Amino acid sequence: MTAPGLFVSFEGIDGSGKSTQARHLAESLRARGREVVLTREPGGSPGAEEIRALVLQGAPDRWSAETELLLFTAARRDHLERTIRPALASGQTVICDRFADSTRMYQGLRREDLRGTVDALHRLMIGLEPDLTFLIDMDPQAALTRAKARATAEERFEDFGLGLQQRLRAGFLALAREFPQRVVVIDGARAPEVVAAEIRASLDARHPA
Amino acid sequence: MTAPGLFVSFEGIDGSGKSTQARHLAESLRARGREVVLTREPGGSPGAEEIRALVLQGAPDRWSAETELLLFTAARRDHLERTIRPALASGQTVICDRFADSTRMYQGLRREDLRGTVDALHRLMIGLEPDLTFLIDMDPQAALTRAKARATAEERFEDFGLGLQQRLRAGFLALAREFPQRVVVIDGARAPEVVAAEIRASLDARHPA
Repeated sequence: MTAPGLFVSFEGIDGSGKSTQARHLAESLRARGREVVLTREPGGSPGAEEIRALVLQGAPDRWSAETELLLFTAARRDHLERTIRPALASGQTVICDRFADSTRMYQGLRREDLRGTVDALHRLMIGLEPDLTFLIDMDPQAALTRAKARATAEERFEDFGLGLQQRLRAGFLALAREFPQRVVVIDGARAPEVVAAEIRASLDARHPA
Repeated sequence: MTAPGLFVSFEGIDGSGKSTQARHLAESLRARGREVVLTREPGGSPGAEEIRALVLQGAPDRWSAETELLLFTAARRDHLERTIRPALASGQTVICDRFADSTRMYQGLRREDLRGTVDALHRLMIGLEPDLTFLIDMDPQAALTRAKARATAEERFEDFGLGLQQRLRAGFLALAREFPQRVVVIDGARAPEVVAAEIRASLDARHPA
C-alpha cells in the first residue's frame, strides 16, 4: 500500500507572493523526483472551476455571504474528491494555493459573525486540513502595491483596500496562533529566492522525504 | 407591522400532480384576494435558477451526492433570501413546489447514509420549515405513467423507475409521520378538482384567512 501523500497549502493576503512560492515549491520538489499536484482554490477541478466562475461573475452583492460560502464549499468538496484525495491516496504531494483558511478569513471579513458557521460547515462537509500550511506574511502596503500591479478578473477579491488587508493580515496571524501545529509563518518581504529557500528548509525539517 | 405570511410547500413523487395542485391553490387563493407568490425548487430566484442549471447539466455522475447537496443548499439559501423571506415578511402567502423535504428524500435515496448530513446542513444554513406541507400521495405505477407522459429536461430526476419511486413514496409517508404537525397527506389518485378542493378545505381549516 502506498503511503498517503503530503498536503501543503499556501495562504496570505493578496500580493504576498504565495502563488509564486507555491509554484517554486512544486518545481523544487519535482526537481528532486517527487510527484506533485499543484492546484488552487477556488477551483482546482473542472466542476469547482465552473462553480468559481459562477461566484465571480456579476455584481458583488449578487450572492449573500452565506450563499457564497455554500458555493465555495461545494467547489471545495468537488476539488477534494476529484483532485486532492485521489492524489494523496496515490502518494503524491498536493500543493494548494489557498484552502479552507482563506474561507475562514475572507468570509469572516465580509461578516464577522460568520466564523462559527464557516467552521461548522467545514467540519460537516470537508473535514480535511492540510498537513502543513505556509502563511506568507507581508506588510499590507507592500502587498497591496504588488496586487494592484496585477490586473486580474477577480478584482472583487483583490481590491479590498489597505484597511481590509490589514485586518486580513491580523486574521491570518491569529489563525497561525490557533493552529500552531500546521501553520508556519514565513516573512514574505524578502527576495523570492530567499523566501523559497526558507519554505523548502521548513518542509524538509518537518516532513523529510 | 404586517403579520407574516403563510409558507406552504407541496411534496410528492414525480407525476403525483403536486405542481398542478400548487398552481390550483395559488389561483384559488388569488381569486379570494390573497397575495400569493408561487415558486419552486430547485430554483425560484435568478441566482438559484443558475445554480439549478449548473446541477442539471452534464452527466449524472458529474457531481457527488455531497457536492450536489451543497449546490442545492446554496440555491435554497438564495431562494430563501431573495424570494421566500421578503414575500413572507410583507404578508404574502408563499406556495413552493418542493422544498427541503425533497432534498431529504432524493439525496437520501441516492445515498442512505446522507440523511443525517442533510438535516445538519439544513439546520445550519436554512433553518426554516413550511407552516404547512401537502404531500400528494399516489401509487407509483400511476404516477410513473404520468411522469413518463411528460418529456422534460430533468429526466435524471424523473426517470428513477418504479422501484425507486416506491422507495420514494414510502420515504415521503415516513416523513409525514415524522412531522405530523405540518405535513398533510392528500390522496392524489382522485380527479384533480377533488384533490384541489380537499387541499383548499384543509388549508382553510388549519389557517383561516
